[in-house]
Amino acid sequence: MATALPDSEYDERLERIRNEIADTDADAGVWFGATSIEYLTGFDHIQTERPVVLAVTRDRTEIVVPRLEVERVEPNPRIDAVHHYRDYPGGRPIAVAVEMLSGLDAERVAADAEGAPGTMGYEGPPLTDHVNVDTQSWVPRLRWEKSDAEVDLIRESATWANLGHRYLAEYTEPGAHPVTVSQRASMDASRAMLDTLGDRYVPRTRGNGPVHAGYITGEQTRLPHGHTANRRLEAGDVLITGATATVDGYYSELERTMFLGEPSDEQVHYFELMLEAQTIAIEALGPGVPIADVDRAVQEYFEEQGVSDLAQHHVGHNIGLDGHEPPYIDRGWGSRCESEYTSYDAEDTVMQPGHVWTIEPGLYTDTYGYRHSDTIAVTDDGIEWLTYYPRDLESNVISLE
Amino acid sequence: MATALPDSEYDERLERIRNEIADTDADAGVWFGATSIEYLTGFDHIQTERPVVLAVTRDRTEIVVPRLEVERVEPNPRIDAVHHYRDYPGGRPIAVAVEMLSGLDAERVAADAEGAPGTMGYEGPPLTDHVNVDTQSWVPRLRWEKSDAEVDLIRESATWANLGHRYLAEYTEPGAHPVTVSQRASMDASRAMLDTLGDRYVPRTRGNGPVHAGYITGEQTRLPHGHTANRRLEAGDVLITGATATVDGYYSELERTMFLGEPSDEQVHYFELMLEAQTIAIEALGPGVPIADVDRAVQEYFEEQGVSDLAQHHVGHNIGLDGHEPPYIDRGWGSRCESEYTSYDAEDTVMQPGHVWTIEPGLYTDTYGYRHSDTIAVTDDGIEWLTYYPRDLESNVISLE
Repeated sequence: MATALPDSEYDERLERIRNEIADTDADAGVWFGATSIEYLTGFDHIQTERPVVLAVTRDRTEIVVPRLEVERVEPNPRIDAVHHYRDYPGGRPIAVAVEMLSGLDAERVAADAEGAPGTMGYEGPPLTDHVNVDTQSWVPRLRWEKSDAEVDLIRESATWANLGHRYLAEYTEPGAHPVTVSQRASMDASRAMLDTLGDRYVPRTRGNGPVHAGYITGEQTRLPHGHTANRRLEAGDVLITGATATVDGYYSELERTMFLGEPSDEQVHYFELMLEAQTIAIEALGPGVPIADVDRAVQEYFEEQGVSDLAQHHVGHNIGLDGHEPPYIDRGWGSRCESEYTSYDAEDTVMQPGHVWTIEPGLYTDTYGYRHSDTIAVTDDGIEWLTYYPRDLESNVISLE
Repeated sequence: MATALPDSEYDERLERIRNEIADTDADAGVWFGATSIEYLTGFDHIQTERPVVLAVTRDRTEIVVPRLEVERVEPNPRIDAVHHYRDYPGGRPIAVAVEMLSGLDAERVAADAEGAPGTMGYEGPPLTDHVNVDTQSWVPRLRWEKSDAEVDLIRESATWANLGHRYLAEYTEPGAHPVTVSQRASMDASRAMLDTLGDRYVPRTRGNGPVHAGYITGEQTRLPHGHTANRRLEAGDVLITGATATVDGYYSELERTMFLGEPSDEQVHYFELMLEAQTIAIEALGPGVPIADVDRAVQEYFEEQGVSDLAQHHVGHNIGLDGHEPPYIDRGWGSRCESEYTSYDAEDTVMQPGHVWTIEPGLYTDTYGYRHSDTIAVTDDGIEWLTYYPRDLESNVISLE
């Protein structure tokens, strides 16, 4: 049972970044993005109006934080020095960062942005006013291929997502409120996870639980990004569920189309088309497979079945520290003709071991939506299902008896 | 009871934006940011790797969305035309946006950014490759002064946050799990809100409830951004709570320092210092007051009391559609000498009617933290408390009997 990323992972990541830096003219790598800073050091923080700036040189890792993060970052074994400013806007985060870079003899840096992001209204001078800045996106690219240790955490996340989803199905009945069922399933699965993992659980939430399970219902399901309506469940409702859990910051994704009582013939028809499309996509996965081909395989199936007008989005995305991450299973992935997106090499257009995909082709009629999502890792010689809730129709019909 | 923003608010906002555009050389205003797009039109969406682009001209409001948002945006009465692309990266959001602008005869635009944000790995060409772009931050600035209708929603939010907080206090006892207490209070308050508001409730969540109440406990309280530990509550615990609710997208903030059982003399000492600092800040609030002065008043009090080393952050922020919004109550607000932040005028350095402040000076010792937060609106002739949970020590001690 893997519940925390081992220290060696961070050492390897920093090593890879130091190799990247060595291939450039830069004296240091610099990061403003919270997720990248966490990826490299294990120091997680809420990105607010207060900038955080990480610098990595050949032999040092230093950071600038607001005063309120000092005690949280100081125990980090990979960070050699912590600099701080009081707060925003009275403190001077960029001036402190420039001083830190000066102490590191870094006159030219490779940064993830020219300055801190404008989160929550932050405004300040770019780093380019003070040092030479080349931009890089090393960390987002490194994150594409997950290590075995990362996949272990996503597999663990899927376990607790499955429990949340099981409770969700169990608590669903006519007259129940979908919000209350969602919150109760999240609460009970979170409690089970916390009590099971005990000291192995890495705290990641603030006044909330590590498991989230919930759904949208009825006609909201026809909108892929619909909201949960304020209406009690009724016999005949279609549900689109979603469940996940955070395990040391990593997420999985489990979604099911469910029926409250026996579905109509039309509902069965679209459910089965969706299920077959998902199966086609999953069977197409594997190392070396062109990513765009998986989207095209689903597209061809939907065209054969005359339902391509009912598809509203691509087949899936990667998942890890963020809920959506590149690459995306999209027919335009890697194509310079169709896409405005042109920055990756040919090897970046095929599936690689360590990619962790959500597979979620959907169909949306005028009345309801139909979508499952499973989280599936690409391995050296095939795939591994990380989510495992049953996909078939019978398992997803909630009996009214 | 105000539960939704009236249509007239959006009409007024668009009118103000059209006046801003008329003062420039631009043919249109353009927005990529989800919150700004919602502020202007009432169309809310999750910002993902799929860009959304809003354009406003003298007489038209048009939008580019990914296919999966089409049905959600089409009913919007303020949007005259909806353009879409299939998905990212196969679709061409910027090309569709350029086509939209061409149809609007917009050769020069005033945009909130030069291109779509890099959310979830989005990469694409900037708009500047195709049209002349001046950048503007009209909407973030407009949001500073809330209208009466906006304050009404934040007041309503505070009502439901208060209920969540009441449940939180009620469910707290030795042996309870802080995560479970948080989730149960959120669930029960959400259900009460949904059942009370009925059709007047505007759905804003996905598999979650509109009320959030929770806390961090024990030694995590000494970290302003600490996590909820996986440890049952014990007699003697210090809690720092937080409660809010979404009302048509608007939030309030209610935080209390509470004690499980009778606090020690040391705990009472720091609690009372914190409470007095909050009172000093609240008494300093009002229209025309220099924002930085309120932070300085607290700073002076802490210095008098010899505890300024225990303060880790400024006094507060604004709140509305985002949990943290500018302006910030910080001694550096508006000062060109102390701050790197230089873009506002003199009138922007004083409190104005319609500002909605959180007031939350904190003290953090080596063992525990002490912080209340209240949400308070500045009015034409004074202030209005929007949160109203009791602040005094006695009300915040949870009896063990």
